[in-house]
Amino acid sequence: MSEQDPTIKPWGGRFSEPTDAFVERFTASVDFDQRLYHHDINGSLAHAKMLAKVGVLSDEEYLAIQTGLEEIRADIAAGKFNWSVTLEDVHMNIEAALTDKIGITGKKLHTGRSRNDQIATDIRLYLRDEIDSIATELSRLQLGLIEVAQREASTIMPGFTHLQTAQPVTFGHHLLAWNEMLQRDYSRLMDCRKRVNQSPLGAAALAGTTYPIDRHYTAELLGFEAPTENSLDSVSDRDFAIEFGAFASLLMTHMSRFSDELVLWTSAQFNFIELPDRFCTGSSIMPQKKNPDVPELVRGKSGRVTGHLISLLMLMKSQPLAYNKDNQEDKEPLFDTIDTVKDCLKAYADMVPAIKARKEYMEEAALRGFSTATDLADYLVRKGMPFRDAHEVVGKSVAYGVAQNKDLSEMTLQELQQFSDTIEQDVFEVLTLIGSVSARDHIGGTAPKQVKAAAERAKALVAQR
Amino acid sequence: MSEQDPTIKPWGGRFSEPTDAFVERFTASVDFDQRLYHHDINGSLAHAKMLAKVGVLSDEEYLAIQTGLEEIRADIAAGKFNWSVTLEDVHMNIEAALTDKIGITGKKLHTGRSRNDQIATDIRLYLRDEIDSIATELSRLQLGLIEVAQREASTIMPGFTHLQTAQPVTFGHHLLAWNEMLQRDYSRLMDCRKRVNQSPLGAAALAGTTYPIDRHYTAELLGFEAPTENSLDSVSDRDFAIEFGAFASLLMTHMSRFSDELVLWTSAQFNFIELPDRFCTGSSIMPQKKNPDVPELVRGKSGRVTGHLISLLMLMKSQPLAYNKDNQEDKEPLFDTIDTVKDCLKAYADMVPAIKARKEYMEEAALRGFSTATDLADYLVRKGMPFRDAHEVVGKSVAYGVAQNKDLSEMTLQELQQFSDTIEQDVFEVLTLIGSVSARDHIGGTAPKQVKAAAERAKALVAQR
Amino acid sequence: MSEQDPTIKPWGGRFSEPTDAFVERFTASVDFDQRLYHHDINGSLAHAKMLAKVGVLSDEEYLAIQTGLEEIRADIAAGKFNWSVTLEDVHMNIEAALTDKIGITGKKLHTGRSRNDQIATDIRLYLRDEIDSIATELSRLQLGLIEVAQREASTIMPGFTHLQTAQPVTFGHHLLAWNEMLQRDYSRLMDCRKRVNQSPLGAAALAGTTYPIDRHYTAELLGFEAPTENSLDSVSDRDFAIEFGAFASLLMTHMSRFSDELVLWTSAQFNFIELPDRFCTGSSIMPQKKNPDVPELVRGKSGRVTGHLISLLMLMKSQPLAYNKDNQEDKEPLFDTIDTVKDCLKAYADMVPAIKARKEYMEEAALRGFSTATDLADYLVRKGMPFRDAHEVVGKSVAYGVAQNKDLSEMTLQELQQFSDTIEQDVFEVLTLIGSVSARDHIGGTAPKQVKAAAERAKALVAQR
Amino acid sequence: MSEQDPTIKPWGGRFSEPTDAFVERFTASVDFDQRLYHHDINGSLAHAKMLAKVGVLSDEEYLAIQTGLEEIRADIAAGKFNWSVTLEDVHMNIEAALTDKIGITGKKLHTGRSRNDQIATDIRLYLRDEIDSIATELSRLQLGLIEVAQREASTIMPGFTHLQTAQPVTFGHHLLAWNEMLQRDYSRLMDCRKRVNQSPLGAAALAGTTYPIDRHYTAELLGFEAPTENSLDSVSDRDFAIEFGAFASLLMTHMSRFSDELVLWTSAQFNFIELPDRFCTGSSIMPQKKNPDVPELVRGKSGRVTGHLISLLMLMKSQPLAYNKDNQEDKEPLFDTIDTVKDCLKAYADMVPAIKARKEYMEEAALRGFSTATDLADYLVRKGMPFRDAHEVVGKSVAYGVAQNKDLSEMTLQELQQFSDTIEQDVFEVLTLIGSVSARDHIGGTAPKQVKAAAERAKALVAQR
Repeated sequence: MSEQDPTIKPWGGRFSEPTDAFVERFTASVDFDQRLYHHDINGSLAHAKMLAKVGVLSDEEYLAIQTGLEEIRADIAAGKFNWSVTLEDVHMNIEAALTDKIGITGKKLHTGRSRNDQIATDIRLYLRDEIDSIATELSRLQLGLIEVAQREASTIMPGFTHLQTAQPVTFGHHLLAWNEMLQRDYSRLMDCRKRVNQSPLGAAALAGTTYPIDRHYTAELLGFEAPTENSLDSVSDRDFAIEFGAFASLLMTHMSRFSDELVLWTSAQFNFIELPDRFCTGSSIMPQKKNPDVPELVRGKSGRVTGHLISLLMLMKSQPLAYNKDNQEDKEPLFDTIDTVKDCLKAYADMVPAIKARKEYMEEAALRGFSTATDLADYLVRKGMPFRDAHEVVGKSVAYGVAQNKDLSEMTLQELQQFSDTIEQDVFEVLTLIGSVSARDHIGGTAPKQVKAAAERAKALVAQR
Repeated sequence: MSEQDPTIKPWGGRFSEPTDAFVERFTASVDFDQRLYHHDINGSLAHAKMLAKVGVLSDEEYLAIQTGLEEIRADIAAGKFNWSVTLEDVHMNIEAALTDKIGITGKKLHTGRSRNDQIATDIRLYLRDEIDSIATELSRLQLGLIEVAQREASTIMPGFTHLQTAQPVTFGHHLLAWNEMLQRDYSRLMDCRKRVNQSPLGAAALAGTTYPIDRHYTAELLGFEAPTENSLDSVSDRDFAIEFGAFASLLMTHMSRFSDELVLWTSAQFNFIELPDRFCTGSSIMPQKKNPDVPELVRGKSGRVTGHLISLLMLMKSQPLAYNKDNQEDKEPLFDTIDTVKDCLKAYADMVPAIKARKEYMEEAALRGFSTATDLADYLVRKGMPFRDAHEVVGKSVAYGVAQNKDLSEMTLQELQQFSDTIEQDVFEVLTLIGSVSARDHIGGTAPKQVKAAAERAKALVAQR
Repeated sequence: MSEQDPTIKPWGGRFSEPTDAFVERFTASVDFDQRLYHHDINGSLAHAKMLAKVGVLSDEEYLAIQTGLEEIRADIAAGKFNWSVTLEDVHMNIEAALTDKIGITGKKLHTGRSRNDQIATDIRLYLRDEIDSIATELSRLQLGLIEVAQREASTIMPGFTHLQTAQPVTFGHHLLAWNEMLQRDYSRLMDCRKRVNQSPLGAAALAGTTYPIDRHYTAELLGFEAPTENSLDSVSDRDFAIEFGAFASLLMTHMSRFSDELVLWTSAQFNFIELPDRFCTGSSIMPQKKNPDVPELVRGKSGRVTGHLISLLMLMKSQPLAYNKDNQEDKEPLFDTIDTVKDCLKAYADMVPAIKARKEYMEEAALRGFSTATDLADYLVRKGMPFRDAHEVVGKSVAYGVAQNKDLSEMTLQELQQFSDTIEQDVFEVLTLIGSVSARDHIGGTAPKQVKAAAERAKALVAQR
Repeated sequence: MSEQDPTIKPWGGRFSEPTDAFVERFTASVDFDQRLYHHDINGSLAHAKMLAKVGVLSDEEYLAIQTGLEEIRADIAAGKFNWSVTLEDVHMNIEAALTDKIGITGKKLHTGRSRNDQIATDIRLYLRDEIDSIATELSRLQLGLIEVAQREASTIMPGFTHLQTAQPVTFGHHLLAWNEMLQRDYSRLMDCRKRVNQSPLGAAALAGTTYPIDRHYTAELLGFEAPTENSLDSVSDRDFAIEFGAFASLLMTHMSRFSDELVLWTSAQFNFIELPDRFCTGSSIMPQKKNPDVPELVRGKSGRVTGHLISLLMLMKSQPLAYNKDNQEDKEPLFDTIDTVKDCLKAYADMVPAIKARKEYMEEAALRGFSTATDLADYLVRKGMPFRDAHEVVGKSVAYGVAQNKDLSEMTLQELQQFSDTIEQDVFEVLTLIGSVSARDHIGGTAPKQVKAAAERAKALVAQR
């Protein structure tokens, strides 16, 4: 009759009526925090081992706890564990099961800690593992991207600014731009990991504990870099989760930009790439459709992840110290951010290597839109004209070309000389696409030689991890 | 062997390889859109009835569809329906089941519509129902609040600005401030409902359909106010959902402010109210704790709802017309917003009537902090002093009181006359709490008479709904 | 020596040291709230007139105040007013100037009100006027859009879903989709205006006032619909500003989607429209560039406006009643939202009528991409085939067309009959673009006849305002 | 007649009509980007020096450019520079002035670069300097905080969870919790700085340049760590600014939490601290008020900074490569974030050392609320009782205390023994406040000894910078 007896709660002593049934469900977290069970048990094992080391538990007690917790872990993994909303959260569910299994000793596990430091420890352990998984998928995506970039280091496409044809670039160069973004995302993730990997265990409810605990030892057992410095801070702040959310929002912003281009490029108008059928879906009404669902969905999911970041920032805003129940709301946004990021990275790591460039359409597009106009201006500068004047000469040539529907390379020398007699026969070399890209031959430039070298450096950076 | 045969998809005709297994899961929505089944079936029934009316379906075909769909509805409600990820979404799952049940006629249901207008219809029907549920809970909360306000119309507490004691107010007056916010939220919800209640059915994929459909008829059957005016807009915009999200964010901001005060008032320092044990929980480590979990959680959930609003706004940003797969991401934030708002309103509608005012602490607090200083200034103005000068006289009296640790009402006449000889014996009347609140006797003011009248008007507004 | 004398502040009486110089600047709002001067003076005039009516001011005093305030208004308009940071805000600057001008009577103006209700009144008056300006620009944009839609009611372009060619639509139909969004934005703006147009004047600091004020009279003088119902709520909530921010975020989301398409359509790849040179800019390095700056900037500004919405929501989160200094932060986001929305609407109202459709490119694009595939499926259904089967037949025809690089309309009857012998000679009629769009002939459909009728209805709605 | 002649624009060559006057203002950035002038000139000087080194400019040309730019810098600093909206931005204004001063050579400065890489360079240089200023203020605030913490290492106050009295802590310990947050913010800022400090100069418009530039040399001249690796990425991404915005949002969230407590503690109900008059303001209507304006404003400004973060994330969402005009919108949110953070840090670095603890009220509050209940439970555990059972014993003692209005330390031994006969005379030692805090004697715990040691370590970390 748990509903009738308030004392079933681990905190029921001072209460005179049971929790309202709806409130019980409303305030319980076990539906979503049960995914922390594995790390909760790891945290408890380290805590118990430490309690045994400092003499708060006997060796037999520790052994009983260890055995009991491992059995519970196996039960949960096997789907044989009954999660109870009345027991509120993952911690109390596991502790109650432990006491069921090993009796009164189970009740000693919670000595010298509180659910406040326990949950802070669990989330950090869990997030640290998920960061490592994300890092792995991110590396896989980067390697796939770099490989395509190497393959396409000399494939010419139009580079755009303002979505207007600007200058020719290579497709490999364009792909490496995405890799640079991911590379910075990776470095942000690693910086975040440092701040996640600190041990709050031992902060207890908010002030530390009167037991002779050894926080350095539990930190070491759990692979944390060090114990945290202040107990009030340890149980109340979640800035590490927000920082992760900021990393994820930036990553997803990059993925969304990437996706937007993929969608654009699969349109009939651009037709620059082909995505394999297995990454696309069709329409229930329009039989001809082949939709780039994966990039569209990834683009859409960027909003979701940024939404979670805002949730977390707003959650924290102006909470007084130390722990408040508000913080229970940190988990769902964090978990969904992790899941979303992992899924999107997996989808892209699988899909990117299968992107097929339609080189003929890329090149044809690069030939349109006066993409070598800057090359003509640079040509004039090399012949001694100030850049601003050269710009004007070319601007007028382009206006003429628009009117005549002719690209610069299609004009005769006489036509070009209308705008400046500095132009000579050798101009036609600089007006070719390959001439244009090859001339941008410095670090960061689009010359195929540079692209290949950049790809090597990028690969080496991933390999070092 | 559905995984091997691409043609099992309703759109498989032009595809040469099956969908990647991970992509299938990644792009499927059935896990979360199955909650729309009831409204999806209602939409299909209306569509089928209309098709029969215009002669696209025979009466027998319509009857078969109707019977089939009602059986499916019963199966789903009874938990006997197998949802398939391969069938992507709620629509295809139900249509496939219908065809299984009634054969080739099932395939005719989709004539003259697309999943694009179908999902737009489903969400609007679903959201309209949820708006009505929310309106009901909101009214219940308002009525509870107004009743407490009536009961406490004369209970005096300190009013704060900058969390500093400002002027005495009545507790009833304070509670009615919250009701005003909720009243505006209600009116925003009703304005949103108008824009939700438009029928996109018949917009088909994006351009309308070549069948002789009757959109007015389906709109009427489904209780919509009118069919929408433009098919491209109908399938692509979700502004009604974002508007709902904005309503919800404002409501939750109000609930969060309300909650913050409840938490403050249950602290040992304020001690203005008591919440019943059944709405609180305790601590696993600190045996004395009784925590206001419900208000804290509601406060925390305001971030969640605002996060979803951002997700939706960002989702929509710069999507070209018409439908894009991104829009699949509209559902989870919307659903979670609805669930969160409903739960928080229910918790508060249950809890608010049980809030117990600790009148003695409220009154004692109102006596401290020079809360009647403005009354003294007003007294001087009525005796002919310009307000700004009166302000200064009182400011100096307060500085003296701070130094002497005496409230204004505790000073002797001589002490008060140090600062102005305009002060006479009758000053002590205006320095009482009841004198102070009763004097604010105009619409919107804190005089108990006004509070009672305001409560009556507020109640009438709710009753009119 | 204002820095040395704390009593220069209107509230200096109880203070023993002057405000820190940096803090004075940090907390002052006059730099940005001076833009409210006109409405602040209007509010003061109404307040003074009411004070005279109820006998708190004599007629002579009211006249002096009126004359003084009008002189100050003229000075400010003429740029001859010295704003002082020491006087903190627009209210104290104007009141100090008034007292300078008319002596002790100036000090009586503030009787029975506080800066808390004064600023709440000012913002509402100001925002109401700006809402009216925005409504005017929005109507102008809508009319321009509808006119282009009428002109282009029969111009055929490809309709897209997933940015893949879906079905032919008319350009006019597409433009009217944008108008529908703006129409809903307009209706949201008007709903917001109702809630803005309530008078908080008389709420005083938080509790009302002891003077015999007439709040109905000031509400009427200022054109408000009614006085607000609760003084605590009146001075503390800013939900009307947040609601305006939500309106603006939705409007800008729509404008951003609109912009994204304009940018896409001006690309060399789409080439669907031309924007006049006067709305574009060039590049300092690439002489051929003509960039669609206006749409790009509008798209970018959507983030700005949503950012302000978040600022406001977060600002309000969990503030206890009544006024807190935090609320000073409501102005800058609100002002910048107003300015941004007005500028973007003006730019578009000017630009949209000058958009030039490149009809030949639009039509050519519509011919590509199997845009009439749905028409073929519908044709088969009309001949008795269930829709799902027809879908599959067409899917296979498209797969053949992709392989052969032939559109459906380019295949021979024999080729088509490979996939179904139901296809006969009359199929070629339904495969034309004009046949396709004209067949979608119901309310909301893309048939030119429907587009023209929809444009008429849309125009009438704007005309009614 | 600049309005009539399109060719005055640096890009006017191909244009046939001048920019619309409103569009000119709407698209110009000079009003806000002029604050970059100093770094723009530094960037130009490095670029020119490099051009001279590689032989594109002669030494005389470089000298002329150098002299001209330094003159312009002096003019701007002296307020003698005329900024022109027609010239769009800071770059063109300065370049035009240079050409005015030194003639045709001025036009050569732009050789081998574009405004796209120029602005990317300017923002990074500017932000790097501002990061350094922020770091300085942050260190100053931290040192002030640590000093107060050292002073108050033994001052006892109630520690709260759920804003309910939890366990006694020391005020110094509480303050160090804030320092820990700031310490992590500092480390995030430094991580961000690494990613800011990369040189995009030489990326030109998007693809690099055909001139033989030396990007390593300009990077070195400007103090950058290295040139960026990809030209497309260099001109289009602003993730470094977003990362800074995320840092700032977290910092302001911490500052807002800090502020919320300061506001709470200055309330008459808490009365834990006093802020000096010079950091507070009063009320124009309530003469007794002393409002904690600075903390309130800082709390409010947290929303502003998070709003800017969202603006930037949304701005970037799904922009295709490379530069789009949207990116012009990156500056105002970034600049306002910087200004806000600097002001808030300055205000707090000034104010925090002047916070005065009201020790007697803190201690009195700690005595109330059964703050030593956990100590009683721990006492029982040390006597052999399992923790969960001890929790229940104490829970019942507290329920008794609530009923009798007695704290645990006020009960007699007999009263306590009602709940467990394990309790003996020595219990009263653990029920004192000093006993309670001193017992939490491990790293991170609240024992004064630990707090002093933690303060030393914290100080050392700041000193190392």
